[in-house]
Amino acid sequence: MMKGKGFILVTNDDGIFAEGLDVLVSELKKRWDVAVVAPESEKSAVGHAITLSDPLRVKRFSKNGRWEGYAVSGTPADCVKIAVFALLDRKPDMVVSGINLGSNTGINVIYSGTVSAATEGTIIGIPSIAISLGTYTDPNFVPAARFATKVVGAVLRKGLPRNTLLNINVPNVKSESEIRGVRLTRQGMSGYAESFDKRVDPRNRVYYWMEGDKIIEEEDEGVDDVALLRNYISVTPIHYDMTNYGVMEELQSWFNKVEWEK
Amino acid sequence: MMKGKGFILVTNDDGIFAEGLDVLVSELKKRWDVAVVAPESEKSAVGHAITLSDPLRVKRFSKNGRWEGYAVSGTPADCVKIAVFALLDRKPDMVVSGINLGSNTGINVIYSGTVSAATEGTIIGIPSIAISLGTYTDPNFVPAARFATKVVGAVLRKGLPRNTLLNINVPNVKSESEIRGVRLTRQGMSGYAESFDKRVDPRNRVYYWMEGDKIIEEEDEGVDDVALLRNYISVTPIHYDMTNYGVMEELQSWFNKVEWEK
Repeated sequence: MMKGKGFILVTNDDGIFAEGLDVLVSELKKRWDVAVVAPESEKSAVGHAITLSDPLRVKRFSKNGRWEGYAVSGTPADCVKIAVFALLDRKPDMVVSGINLGSNTGINVIYSGTVSAATEGTIIGIPSIAISLGTYTDPNFVPAARFATKVVGAVLRKGLPRNTLLNINVPNVKSESEIRGVRLTRQGMSGYAESFDKRVDPRNRVYYWMEGDKIIEEEDEGVDDVALLRNYISVTPIHYDMTNYGVMEELQSWFNKVEWEK
Repeated sequence: MMKGKGFILVTNDDGIFAEGLDVLVSELKKRWDVAVVAPESEKSAVGHAITLSDPLRVKRFSKNGRWEGYAVSGTPADCVKIAVFALLDRKPDMVVSGINLGSNTGINVIYSGTVSAATEGTIIGIPSIAISLGTYTDPNFVPAARFATKVVGAVLRKGLPRNTLLNINVPNVKSESEIRGVRLTRQGMSGYAESFDKRVDPRNRVYYWMEGDKIIEEEDEGVDDVALLRNYISVTPIHYDMTNYGVMEELQSWFNKVEWEK
């Protein structure tokens, strides 16, 4: 197949050694030019962090001669910034972040390094998608990589709405035929049952491990968590304007009624 | 003055030694019970990070005998979680995060540890506010601390809209009379002029410093950046549903038109 026009920046938050990145890059490389700029180590749950207080270091990386890239001593968002503003000699046509081992749905979206890289691409003005696989064990990244290819093709042809990225979650299945379809979804608002496991180390000092299980009480397949659970690919349009416009009027009247001097 | 009913959890992202935290705690303590659980060191631009791969450690902290708290080896969001689920013996009535040295307006909101702590409080179901001062030099935290007290009083009496926190930015002024008023605002979408400063270390290895200046092209005082620049206190209602509902219809038709098999 002749390569299409398109230059794709690929990054992730599981780090440049991750299998999900490799499967994605290998698939995208069949059709487009691909640059890889990814964290040198795992950066899970870094949220939309950027590195201001430390310098960033960059190393050339080769994946067994199959593809090359840059390993960066920073977060996924750092990788996108440094790729565009320092490392690459032309601006990418798209940013693709993933494939993450583990879903990024519901409240998790705000903690997600995978999503933050695509957000950073969007801020810079590059159409961007994040793609995650709904499992932590026995991953089959191939269906997600193939779906990413379809979305990249579509976005290169048709673009994306302004200031909007696609947050894609793909169910983990042995065979693609188990996937029931694609759903356009909204971010779920399900909470967590959280706790901390308090332990004592060999030097008698206390430390804590964070624990938490998501409690999905929703039933609507228009919600990312639910769609994914039911073996649909969920696609959620995400933006970075966190203003809650829906409460503006209520809050204005709240404001007017507050006796500020009390 | 008799203390009001109310138990306030205070945190920040500049760390437990920060002046902005001290001024805030000292002011709030005059009226309510206050618990302080804050990062042991500065955590700027950590975004909404949580610590999953490392254990958290906690130390008792005393601010010269004036107030006591806990210093945590984690992010601002970690501090709120561990305070509520492990350290405090009762649930706080509010979370107040700040006073940050430096504004958290516009796109910066998504990188802000200060805001993420208040987001975490909101997720847990506690009315929360984030408060930042619009300067990096010669800070006068007193007007911001006094305004925080007014907002806390109002929120304790009237609550906040569901799933919504207030992101407050206060101009840095010598005298409170220079503040022109309070504006209910939306998050600005101004971008940055970004670059990386490439340097060589004494061992001849290349490293990069991230640089960037915000370019505020907006003029509307209903935007947080603009209100703050013009010496208003800006108050933006923030939520953590990042779904871009405004593009759902457009995207559905985009979806329908995509020839997925190409």
